[in-house]
Amino acid sequence: MTEWAKRLLVGRPLRTTSLHRQLLPKRLALPVFCSDPISSVAYATEQIIMALTLGGLALLHLTGWVGVAIVGVLAVIVLSYRQTCYAYPNGGGAYVVARSNLGVNAGLVAASALLVDYVLTVAVSVAAGVDAITSYAPGLQPWSVALSVACIAVLTVVNLRGTRESGRGFAVPTYAFIATVYVMFLFAAWRLLTGERPRATSADFTIEPYFQPAGLVAIFLVLRAFASGCTALTGVEAVSNGVPAFRPPKSRNAANTLAVMGALSITMFSGITALALLTGVRMIDPDHPGRIAGAPADYVEPTALAQIGQAVFGGGILYALLQATTAAILIMAANTAYNGFPMLASILSADSFLSRHLHKRGDRLVFSNGILLLATAAAVLLVVFDANSSRLIQLYIIGVFVSFTLSQTGMVVHWQRAGGPRAPGVLPRQAINAVGAVVTAVVLVIVLTTKFLNGAWLVCLAMPALFLTMKGIRRHYDQVRVATRPGAAVDRPASGHAMVLVSRLSAPALQAVAYASVSRPAGLEAVHVCVDEEETRELREGWQRYAPDVPLTLIDSPYRSIVGPILDHIRKRRARHAGQLVTVYIVEYVIGRWWERALHNRMTARLRKRLLLVGGVTVTLVPYRLASGERRAAEPRPPRLATRLALLAGRTPPRDPGSD
Amino acid sequence: MTEWAKRLLVGRPLRTTSLHRQLLPKRLALPVFCSDPISSVAYATEQIIMALTLGGLALLHLTGWVGVAIVGVLAVIVLSYRQTCYAYPNGGGAYVVARSNLGVNAGLVAASALLVDYVLTVAVSVAAGVDAITSYAPGLQPWSVALSVACIAVLTVVNLRGTRESGRGFAVPTYAFIATVYVMFLFAAWRLLTGERPRATSADFTIEPYFQPAGLVAIFLVLRAFASGCTALTGVEAVSNGVPAFRPPKSRNAANTLAVMGALSITMFSGITALALLTGVRMIDPDHPGRIAGAPADYVEPTALAQIGQAVFGGGILYALLQATTAAILIMAANTAYNGFPMLASILSADSFLSRHLHKRGDRLVFSNGILLLATAAAVLLVVFDANSSRLIQLYIIGVFVSFTLSQTGMVVHWQRAGGPRAPGVLPRQAINAVGAVVTAVVLVIVLTTKFLNGAWLVCLAMPALFLTMKGIRRHYDQVRVATRPGAAVDRPASGHAMVLVSRLSAPALQAVAYASVSRPAGLEAVHVCVDEEETRELREGWQRYAPDVPLTLIDSPYRSIVGPILDHIRKRRARHAGQLVTVYIVEYVIGRWWERALHNRMTARLRKRLLLVGGVTVTLVPYRLASGERRAAEPRPPRLATRLALLAGRTPPRDPGSD
Repeated sequence: MTEWAKRLLVGRPLRTTSLHRQLLPKRLALPVFCSDPISSVAYATEQIIMALTLGGLALLHLTGWVGVAIVGVLAVIVLSYRQTCYAYPNGGGAYVVARSNLGVNAGLVAASALLVDYVLTVAVSVAAGVDAITSYAPGLQPWSVALSVACIAVLTVVNLRGTRESGRGFAVPTYAFIATVYVMFLFAAWRLLTGERPRATSADFTIEPYFQPAGLVAIFLVLRAFASGCTALTGVEAVSNGVPAFRPPKSRNAANTLAVMGALSITMFSGITALALLTGVRMIDPDHPGRIAGAPADYVEPTALAQIGQAVFGGGILYALLQATTAAILIMAANTAYNGFPMLASILSADSFLSRHLHKRGDRLVFSNGILLLATAAAVLLVVFDANSSRLIQLYIIGVFVSFTLSQTGMVVHWQRAGGPRAPGVLPRQAINAVGAVVTAVVLVIVLTTKFLNGAWLVCLAMPALFLTMKGIRRHYDQVRVATRPGAAVDRPASGHAMVLVSRLSAPALQAVAYASVSRPAGLEAVHVCVDEEETRELREGWQRYAPDVPLTLIDSPYRSIVGPILDHIRKRRARHAGQLVTVYIVEYVIGRWWERALHNRMTARLRKRLLLVGGVTVTLVPYRLASGERRAAEPRPPRLATRLALLAGRTPPRDPGSD
Repeated sequence: MTEWAKRLLVGRPLRTTSLHRQLLPKRLALPVFCSDPISSVAYATEQIIMALTLGGLALLHLTGWVGVAIVGVLAVIVLSYRQTCYAYPNGGGAYVVARSNLGVNAGLVAASALLVDYVLTVAVSVAAGVDAITSYAPGLQPWSVALSVACIAVLTVVNLRGTRESGRGFAVPTYAFIATVYVMFLFAAWRLLTGERPRATSADFTIEPYFQPAGLVAIFLVLRAFASGCTALTGVEAVSNGVPAFRPPKSRNAANTLAVMGALSITMFSGITALALLTGVRMIDPDHPGRIAGAPADYVEPTALAQIGQAVFGGGILYALLQATTAAILIMAANTAYNGFPMLASILSADSFLSRHLHKRGDRLVFSNGILLLATAAAVLLVVFDANSSRLIQLYIIGVFVSFTLSQTGMVVHWQRAGGPRAPGVLPRQAINAVGAVVTAVVLVIVLTTKFLNGAWLVCLAMPALFLTMKGIRRHYDQVRVATRPGAAVDRPASGHAMVLVSRLSAPALQAVAYASVSRPAGLEAVHVCVDEEETRELREGWQRYAPDVPLTLIDSPYRSIVGPILDHIRKRRARHAGQLVTVYIVEYVIGRWWERALHNRMTARLRKRLLLVGGVTVTLVPYRLASGERRAAEPRPPRLATRLALLAGRTPPRDPGSD
């Protein structure tokens, strides 16, 4: 059943050799890798306004200047990362760049920052997408957590199907959002030219300041607005990390995609911020409510983009389209993380910093385990934070700027190694990355200081925890590698002794004896622990009849325990015959129905685990199929959907590749 | 750690041979087996009043007559069961009596009734005990579910320590409750003689009828009051079931204990009912509230016994003592079920009607698994029913009267087989049981008709479900017994082929090869599934160096699955060499720390399960200890508390018997 469901959801397995067919043309790479930065224009302006409004309306005229600063930083980062695309054609994620230029620890810091941020990207984007939906249909508000988790489920399934298909699926909403926003700009321009001035419904609200906006407080509020607006900068990493997924010439295609993304982000962000100022959008932080005057009693705050859209389009189909495409691209933006996280996890796993099972590609050639891990973590965050995007956003971007700074610093070192400023062509490149490093470091400091108490401390705990976990895993794998190197001492027993555990006289027990004797052991004995006198007597009598040549050892157990006396017996034997391997034969019933499992094999699992702790012992499981187990073993694996369809269509089905 | 905690809680293991030392003298048997029927006098009167009050105050004068009827039934049941004690000295629970006289199905009906009722006994007694506590301290009301579950936890631990000790622990509260109630009677008598008449605080409340008490409705209400009061009759079963736990002469001691219990129950129940009438206690069913006039606005209804106690003692230390001993005995009453349920489950398990692990005694000689099962079921009920004793009590007593009726009917058949009414001494005995059977059958019909809609339907579903489950388990075990009888065909392979699964060149893999070759198989091969080209190349090169004489089979896996290709390979081999046993060697890492488990053996478990489904294959687990696993294996088992204390006292500790 589960196999059926899996095939239906994720499709048939793909051959390893078809990996190159999954490469992305630019028109698909843009939605796959850039939906995150492009979509963040949907909430960046709003975050700036909210932060400034903590000081009432007095600081709101600074929105434009904060926006300009953010556009400046974005331009620097895009320029910097274009160079990374060329310098690291095999994928220049912050981890790779920092690790190869600044050392393992810097790499791991960048990696933990990125892992945390990918999870947050999913959580924030999905929560913001659901916000767009509930702005349009406030009745859905109570179900926002459920909606968010459902979105994650859909994203997960789509990504488990593979990169190519998800790229296609995501192209439409990304381009639709971009188009709708530009249409909104044209509409606004036309209305302005005809002398109209669109006004947001909230334009006449007055808002009490939460802090008095004077002196240092004003500076703090502006810096915090800047820090909040920097959410527009997330996700640039994904392109440079994903260079190998581009069609050749990979580096150039990636760099150009990055440039297109930069141009789109800058124009859209600038336009939306300008419109927000023009329409007079008012927004307050939902964590500090009750300061609005002039609003109706049951006022539910729509997002800033929704307010602008309503003001410009005056409601109607275009406004609905704006909300729909906003929701769609925001949810798709989470997809950027679905590409970044599993790939980074796989690289870290190959370097032994994460569990090995994150390394291998699943049967659709994607890193299925990484995808599932990301989805689970994001879903947990959404549930814990009640799908509240404003609160989640506070945790965000710290990781981004940690990795930006490390990556750009790494690039500076990279150019230095490439010959330094005096080598031909290096100076301008190194300069760009140096500017990038300094700017992102400054932003990081601003973000940290202005957001620490608002939840950023959580990330400041999570990152070191991840860092230490990864170091610990690496240390463990290193120890294992040393301990298990082929040259290590191997126990070479001279002979083997077989011990068949028998609880009562039965065909399975006799089967185990028959199998044990095939291995022609130096010694063969059946072992029974006496707990019930009657049982023991029956066994002894029957044994004489059915297996007279196999000695039956009876072990007393005055305290009715089974495992302890068996272990004692083996240890005693090992002490007498140190050079002999003891193989313990245990019958394991093969059972078909779930409820039958409660009735069998209860002792087997316990015995197996304890026996493996004794040195010089192997455990051989002798399956014995009960009727229902027989049926289960005989059941054919469910054929994949393609096979069934081919059969329906009368064609020869392709060979079923099977699966784990 | 868990072993330590277990020893501290339940004490050191007991030898099987010390079983007879756990036998109970009468003075301990009374609290162990009779706390249930004795304690139910604490709520039986209240249940009668509540049921009658559904018709307002008009029917309340009938309380006395209902009480008389119940005393009559109780006397009949005690007389009937005394005979069972003599007739079935090895334990005459309803299951045994019904099974041996009326057939397996009747026995199973009785058994499912009893199992359900034991669980309800625990739930009802604990809930009522907590009611007594919250009547005295209404502030604890919000924690009643938590208190109830805590009580169950304590009872469970005490019972896991063993019957003898729990008998001792429970003697004090039982005798204290009996003494306090008789002191209350003396007090009331003295106050009456001095001309005072104690009045309950609720005596002047007027209560609106919920039903108009006329004609059939009045009859229905009286019958329902009778049915509710019959809760006083529960638990008699436990004595006849527990005959083997008495000191010799077992039957006589048990019968006499039953007689003492009957006398105590009848006098206490009659006295309490009389006092309730005298003091004018008013109570309403909490499920039909809002019909009291004259009560203060924040009136929280105390239990009837609490109201009587307060009226007689006028508050003070004696009132507090009454509440404390009531709470204690009610909670102890649950203990009756802790003795009955596990023993019945063990008998059913021995007859293959329940999972075999309920049959064996744990290391304290009690049926630990049965105790844990009972505790879990009762705790779930308490949580689901919000520890509401009035609602739980509706589910109760149906099972009791089902088993009473079957048991007494069985006794009638028993006497018939013993010669029938004409044999010497049989007539009066058979007559008593016949009367018992008829009376309990009538009560059962009354209970069923008057309580069906109030929750009894739940029990009417649970009992058949249990019945069918037990039949299913028996059928399964029977099938297994036939399928695994020693004469069944056993596969006798002519030779063995060893297959060592190798994922990379490592000491564990070489260790597995070394162990495999000890069994001198006809063929030995190492098998590797190629998923990563680099890995495969490394393995092939290293293999030449470290194990040149063992052929290495490389299996292609274009879809990167591991399990499927291995199974295919084995199946192909089996098709060519049908008479050969294939033994698959799998390395299992032995790991010490929990978090390391996430990093290893992920594939092993899956492989093991799938391989056991292939015919003619055994799986041999080759343990390889990592450093932490080495430490875990070397760790001594935690010594039991007695050993540590003996060492502290400078004495030679007794030998540690070990445990599972």
